Formats: sequence, C-alpha cells, structure tokens
Amino acid sequence: MTYAVWGWGDPAQQPRTHDLVAAMPWANELLGFTVADPETPSPLQPLPPPRCAADVFAGLGSTDPVDRARHGIGRSYRDIVRGIRGEIPHVPDVVVRPRTAAEVGEVLERCSERGWAVVPFGGGTSVVGGVEPMLPADSPHPAVVSLDLCRLRRVLEVDAVSRAALIEAGALGPDLEAQLAATGHTLRFYPQSFERSTLGGWIATRAAGHYATGATHIDDLVESVTAVTPGGSWSSRRLPGSGAGPSPDRLLLGSEGALGVVTQAWVRLQVRPAHRAGTSIAFTSWRDGAAAVRRIVQAGLRPAGCRLVDATEARLTSTLDDGRSVLVLSFESPDAPCDADLARALEICADSGGSALPGRVGVETSGRWRETFVRAPYLRESLVLLGVLTETFESAVTWDRFDAFVDAVRTTTLDAVRRVCGAGIVTCRTTHAYADGAAPYFTVFAPARRGGELAQWAEIKAAAAEAIMAGGGTITHHHAIGRDHRPWYDAQRPELFAVALRAAKKALDPAGILNPGVLID
Amino acid sequence: MTYAVWGWGDPAQQPRTHDLVAAMPWANELLGFTVADPETPSPLQPLPPPRCAADVFAGLGSTDPVDRARHGIGRSYRDIVRGIRGEIPHVPDVVVRPRTAAEVGEVLERCSERGWAVVPFGGGTSVVGGVEPMLPADSPHPAVVSLDLCRLRRVLEVDAVSRAALIEAGALGPDLEAQLAATGHTLRFYPQSFERSTLGGWIATRAAGHYATGATHIDDLVESVTAVTPGGSWSSRRLPGSGAGPSPDRLLLGSEGALGVVTQAWVRLQVRPAHRAGTSIAFTSWRDGAAAVRRIVQAGLRPAGCRLVDATEARLTSTLDDGRSVLVLSFESPDAPCDADLARALEICADSGGSALPGRVGVETSGRWRETFVRAPYLRESLVLLGVLTETFESAVTWDRFDAFVDAVRTTTLDAVRRVCGAGIVTCRTTHAYADGAAPYFTVFAPARRGGELAQWAEIKAAAAEAIMAGGGTITHHHAIGRDHRPWYDAQRPELFAVALRAAKKALDPAGILNPGVLID
Repeated sequence: MTYAVWGWGDPAQQPRTHDLVAAMPWANELLGFTVADPETPSPLQPLPPPRCAADVFAGLGSTDPVDRARHGIGRSYRDIVRGIRGEIPHVPDVVVRPRTAAEVGEVLERCSERGWAVVPFGGGTSVVGGVEPMLPADSPHPAVVSLDLCRLRRVLEVDAVSRAALIEAGALGPDLEAQLAATGHTLRFYPQSFERSTLGGWIATRAAGHYATGATHIDDLVESVTAVTPGGSWSSRRLPGSGAGPSPDRLLLGSEGALGVVTQAWVRLQVRPAHRAGTSIAFTSWRDGAAAVRRIVQAGLRPAGCRLVDATEARLTSTLDDGRSVLVLSFESPDAPCDADLARALEICADSGGSALPGRVGVETSGRWRETFVRAPYLRESLVLLGVLTETFESAVTWDRFDAFVDAVRTTTLDAVRRVCGAGIVTCRTTHAYADGAAPYFTVFAPARRGGELAQWAEIKAAAAEAIMAGGGTITHHHAIGRDHRPWYDAQRPELFAVALRAAKKALDPAGILNPGVLID
Repeated sequence: MTYAVWGWGDPAQQPRTHDLVAAMPWANELLGFTVADPETPSPLQPLPPPRCAADVFAGLGSTDPVDRARHGIGRSYRDIVRGIRGEIPHVPDVVVRPRTAAEVGEVLERCSERGWAVVPFGGGTSVVGGVEPMLPADSPHPAVVSLDLCRLRRVLEVDAVSRAALIEAGALGPDLEAQLAATGHTLRFYPQSFERSTLGGWIATRAAGHYATGATHIDDLVESVTAVTPGGSWSSRRLPGSGAGPSPDRLLLGSEGALGVVTQAWVRLQVRPAHRAGTSIAFTSWRDGAAAVRRIVQAGLRPAGCRLVDATEARLTSTLDDGRSVLVLSFESPDAPCDADLARALEICADSGGSALPGRVGVETSGRWRETFVRAPYLRESLVLLGVLTETFESAVTWDRFDAFVDAVRTTTLDAVRRVCGAGIVTCRTTHAYADGAAPYFTVFAPARRGGELAQWAEIKAAAAEAIMAGGGTITHHHAIGRDHRPWYDAQRPELFAVALRAAKKALDPAGILNPGVLID
C-alpha cells in the first residue's frame, strides 16, 4: 500500500475536485457557514538535502523526498493543511525500515554513536505532533532519523488457551485482525485511526479504543511489552496480573517513543461477540443524558457503546435532528444474551428523562458504526480542502465537575472560534464512561482563512486547552501529548514525576536521541 | 488500640496456653502430624540503645523499646517466630508519628540532612519483610527511623457524585469503612489484612482485595495519589482516566516506600451490593475446576468470588471432605439481580464436570466469609505457638501454563517440606481469575524444629520461589516484594527497567534514605 504524504488513504482515494464542488451546497447547509472553493493540493516543495547518508543503515534507509515528507507530519489538522500546501517544515534526513527487533537495536546503536535523533514511527497518524521530527532550537543532534516499524507486522504466536497473542509493533489494525481471524480471535481494539495505526503506536500513546467501558484502553489489553533502547532491549514477563513492584509496562505505556522503541507485545484477545443489544435514547437536556450515563455505569452496567451526542453533533451526523441530545447505547457479550442489561439501562434512562427512539436500533449494533467511524478521517480531508478548520480534542473529568466542565470548554472554544474565524460550530459527545467520570470529545468546524490556518488553529487550541486545564480535566484522554500538548501537559503532571521521568530517560537514553521534544526535555 | 509486638490483635486477644492445649488433638487430626506443646512467648530481649535521639522530631518520636520492637517486624511467619522468642534483630532507632503530610515532609527533611534511613510504616502487616529496618551490610546510614502514619487516618472528603473519597494514607480498613459508611459508600477493598493494614500500605504494595475479578486491585481503585519525597511532595490530578504520558500513580503503586511516602489518595467508592447469588460446586479433578474458572471468566462473567479450593484445603477448611476440589462461586451487584450470571456459570461448571453442592449456599454470599477470612491470621499465630511452620505464598500465571505450574510448585514445595521438616501439607486455591490466567495461592503446614524455624523456612521458601520462577509465574501477585522476595524479583524484572527505576529513585531520594533494601539498591 502506498500512503499519500498527507491524505488518510492511498492517493487514489483522495478527494476529487468535482466531487468537492458537488458537496459544497450540502456542506454550507450542514455547517451554517459558507465553505470555500476546493483547494487544489500543491506539489511538494523541495526539501533540504539530507544531513546524513542512508548507507550507514545497510540498505534499510531511504532519502526519497516523498518518503521523507510523509514522515515529517502526522494527521492533525495542521499536518493536513501543511501537506496540501506541500510545505513540510520538518522532515527526517533518512527514513529507516528495520526488518527485525535486532535491526531496530542496530539502528539505535548507530544513531546513538552519531548523536542522530530518532523518531519512532508506527502508522504516522498522530494528531498531536507526535512524529514530527522537530528538534528544539538548541538541539545537539546533527540529523534526525525516522524509524518506521512497518516491516514488523506479524502475529508471531497465538495462545488460544489464555487468549493472548504476541504481535509485532508495526502491525496495523487490519493487519493484525486479519492474522488473528484465522484463529477465531480478535483484539477488538478500534481507535478511530484503526486502519492506519499500529500496535506499537497504540502502546506508546496509551490509545483508547471505541468501546465506552471495560478494557477499552490498550493499557488493559497489554500482557507484556518488549522495547529496544539505545542501551539494549527489555521484555516484561507475560503475566495476567502482578504485584511485583511498579509495573514495567506502565512506564512504557504513554512514553511516546522517548524511553524506548516498542517492538512487540503480548496482548489479550477475545472471541467475537455472539450477542448484541442496543438502541438510542433522546434527551431534551444534555445534562439529563449525562446523568443517565453516570447512573448506568454506577449501576455496574458495562455497555460496549455509551455515546452521548449533543444536539448539534446529532444533527451533523444525521443521528437526530430535533434539538435533542442522543445516547447511543449498546451491549455485547461473547456468551450470553444482554437484553436484560439493555432493559435495565433503558429504565435508568427513562428515570433520567430520556425517551427511547422507537424502531431505532443503535447504530453501534448494526455493524455499520465501524465503517462510519473509521471513514471520518476521509471526510475530514475533504472539509479541509473546502477551507474548513476542523479540529477535535478530548479530555476526561470526574462527574462532580462534568457539567460545568463541558459548559466551560464548549463556551470558551466557541467564543474563540467566533473571534478567530467569525463563525463556526463546536460539538460535544462522550466517548468513554467511568463510574467516577467521563471523557468528553469536542469537534470544531469553522471557516478558515487560507494561509492563516495554522495561526487560527493555534489560538483556538490554546483557548480550549486552557479551559480544559482550568476545569480540572486532563489535557488528553487518548490522543496523547506529542508536541502540541506539551505546555499543558507540563502544567498537569506533577513536577517530581517529571524529575523521575527525566532521570529514567537519561539512564535509558544517555544521548537523548529518542524523540526529542515529546514528554520531557 | 495497643498492638502487640508480634500478635495480630491486641495483647488481650493473644492465644492462651490452656486453649492451645485443648486444640492439640484437633490440630494433630487435621494436619496429619503431631504438633508441639504450646510455646510460652518469651519476654522481649534487650534492644541495642537508639543510635539517635528522638528530640530532633519535636515530640513526634518515640524510643520506647516495645514501640521500637513492634516496628522491627511485620507479620510473616519469620516475624511471628522472632516475636514469640522476643528476638527482634533489626529495630528502628526511633519511631516517628507525624500528624500531617507537612510533618511527614519535615521528618524526611531532617532524616535526609542526617543520612538517617526512613522505613515508611502503615499497619505493619507485611509478610515479606517490607517494613523490617534491616540495612545492607555496607549501609551508609548511621540510624533508621520508622515513619508510622497511624495519625493520618481521616477520610478528608467524599465526592458522592463521582463516588470517590480523599483518604489519608494511615487509615486502617475498618477506620475508613466506618467513616465512609456514614455517607452510604464503601471502598469494598478487603485484603486478608483488612483489620490491620492501611490505604497507604495497600498502594505501596499493590495489594489485591478479596474479590476474584474486576477492580479488585488497589491499582484500579486509585484516582490520584499524593506522596512526599525528600525533595518535596507530588500529587497527581484527580481523573477517571488519562492518556497524558505514563501514569504518575502507576510509578508509586508498588514502590514499597522506596520512591516516596504516600500520604493521601483519592479512591473510587461503591455502594453496598443489593443483590447476591452464589453456591459451591465440587470437581473430582482440580484441572476440571480450573478449566471451569477459565471458561467462566472468558465468557465475560465477573464473579465477585471464584475461589477454586483443592481437596486438601477443602478438608482443612471444612468446606468439603470427600477428596474433591470445590469452587466457591458468587456474584453481586449494586443494582440488579445476578441469578442469570450464576445460572450461566453453573452451566459452564456442569459442562466442565462439576456438581453443584445441593443446599450449600456459597459461603461468600453469607456475609460470614469475611469474618472467617480476616480471622485467619489469629489462627495462624496459634499454630505457630504449637510449633507449626505455616507459610503462604502466591503467584499468577497465564492459563496455558497454569496446570503444569500448579503441579510443579505444589510438588516441589511438598518435596522441600518433607525433606526439611519430615512431614507436612501443601494446599492450593485460586484467589483471582483473569481471562488470560489466574492467581494460585499456596499454604504450607509442617512440623517445625524449635530453634531451627528460620532456616527451615528459608529452604522451603527458596524451593517454592525457584519453582515459581521456572514455571513462568510472578514472584508475587499481591504480597509484594519486601526483602524476602528480592532475589527472585531481581531475576524477574527487566534489567533496563531496574536501571530506569534506580535513576528515578536517585533523582527523588538522592541520599537513598527511603526504605533501603527493598525494590532496588
């Protein structure tokens, strides 16, 4: 598969101008502001010559400009805008594609000797600047290498008794699911980037999957991890649980390539659900819907889907268009019917002022949700070509603060959108529900000023992030920190934890070559 | 409450000689070997004079010999034997009881300046030498202080909406439950040490509670942690979930006092279960019972109790006495009946060759289990006085290795018991069940040689630990590492993780005063 420099799919799937023109009236109607004429993507601007030669990597390195450009950005709004313009400001000097964990070690060794920075690269779908080889101004590194794990994509072993598999870190979602399907298993981990992101990337960024409750974080699906550092490699013991000291895996989970390169992991598998039940419930008040979500999880129910969508987003996604919020609710089980769970959840919803939408089977249960869900990035790139600023950001917060938090973040962001862009929409849904809180997910659509998008984005992003921090949320629930969230992450994490993390990094990566600029300095 | 130097309860509850004599025929019959005449506990031997004065701690310090002796041991078999003999080889020079987190900080500051080692002390129930102030031979520390958190025992705040509470680290199980009960909540965390152990101790040791599945580890119940280090204090943000970098809390969970002193934490609460269902199922073959446990959890069922007890332990505990193993199974829910879950689990058990025991309601559901469970430590000290070597140890292993693992550990340990003691029993039960494995828990009873107990214990312990490591298990699933498990922990944990941990400790605790000898050197 050939990946485009900036598009979500392969180049053949990129939006065509006549389709975009045809979509303009629909987009204007839907968004409530006037979109721009479709932009024709610019060719890639000339790149600076590589500051190092690929030959040190013995046939594994590439200095092809498209390759370098592709590894210079992720898939954030900023990345797509820069990609469309052909202006990729930070590119690696070489892209290296090791075939084995041993070769990953050799790459790190060679880079360590030379002081070359190394940016681990999985699917390259970061929406927070996680893979952009942007060195700090005072960087001591004479060159940057993008270490692409795409050749490590095999399921190496399946343990059907324990329901676990050893999988290489570069395996994309569809890769590993196809290999597991032959054994009757599934990882059942579906982040929105499923098609284009990798197991190693999920672990490095503490990704969360589509399911609203239960073991939906990759953290909970990991049984053991192997990582390669400049000083050698490390593997934890495969265990269902352990109390032997702080968890080694939990130090790598969320380490964003700054402590080591994840090369493989044992992960927990499931069998496909045999039973499903779901529906949608409308709420006149978003707050009543949120109370219903809280009561459902606090009752001990564990819905697979439990997505409260606000009225604006319900309209945009054609879920409901009467000014009410919608809770899209579903249960699934590998073994037993879950109708009783759904019935109990519906009672709770009714008690909270919800009205079940007759005849409306939860889209979550129809099997089509996944297609819709994973198609969203394709839609997004069309909107960007029509001059729409599209941004998503997310958080998590405890229930006691939830209502005020969502109000404040929504209002602050909408104020910023209107101030910066003159018009726009901010929508909210919940993605994950916990007994003690929930994860709200915000989407922004606004008319961008061509050429001014990056500054507009930065101003809106900062306003939203400040509101998140002031409201007691986390700067990210599942998008990771990357370079974009660093200022707020630095304020969020305890300073002494940063001291510990910095010391750990210094010990594991003395030359500081691993993904400089993310997580810690 | 006054604690005895070595007993589980207060001194008034310690076993009396005439009761022990009366119990001898029963013990002989039950254990299959002849117990010894009851030992009369010896008075406490004179302690070495304190190497530092208490006055530096401004009224918070004690050099009382009983106080020092009590803080010199935990509650392992070795500790009880040494306590009975009045021989406590390692005692702190001073016991300090700060009243606030600020005072904890002052204690650390004063000790840091002087190079005095500090052993954080919660309930002092470690069964692995976690609180024994035993400095390495080459220790640079001129004195050792036991930092007892017993004065920090308040529930500071309850958030009824999010179901969470901020609780001081020195609160014992009954302390915090009594304070929470007034608000209608419960932490519902019941390790066997519940009566005598503290929230801070649970966090420092990654303790697990009584429940077999679900959020039974303290790891999952913690929303945020505050810890004091020699360089200041650190608090994580209260969040239901987060993907912002590696979890700060997970670095403290299991850190055994070596990285900081936990002073308070926000924890997740529940309401009391309104519905329960349970029963017991007999299996002619332990392996069939294990297969049933595996199939129950892999079906997505989450029993509160799911304890497979082998035939020997079933007989010893009067659960069943016909040579069969017993699965004690129960479900509970705060909201809805769980009879359907029990019915499905019983179908699985029947398919796996199990026979439901008629009329036998699961002891787990009767409310009496907790009393029996938390009374076990009292029984144990009676047996030690009757010359019985009693040891428990536990592990966790993936299902693919489970059967061979339990066989090998049981056989190896029994061989060692017979070689070392001439007779004895080794029993096994499962305590926790996961989709990918389970936690087996072993109990040893053997006739000890008076005066030779510690050497006998060490030989049996080493044989069992070697078998655990060879079989692919963890050296501890919920008892922690302490000093007793260090050799095997050092072999289990990835060397580069130890490198990272050592660097983190050095950064947080430059003088190395925090609990030297545990976790890392």
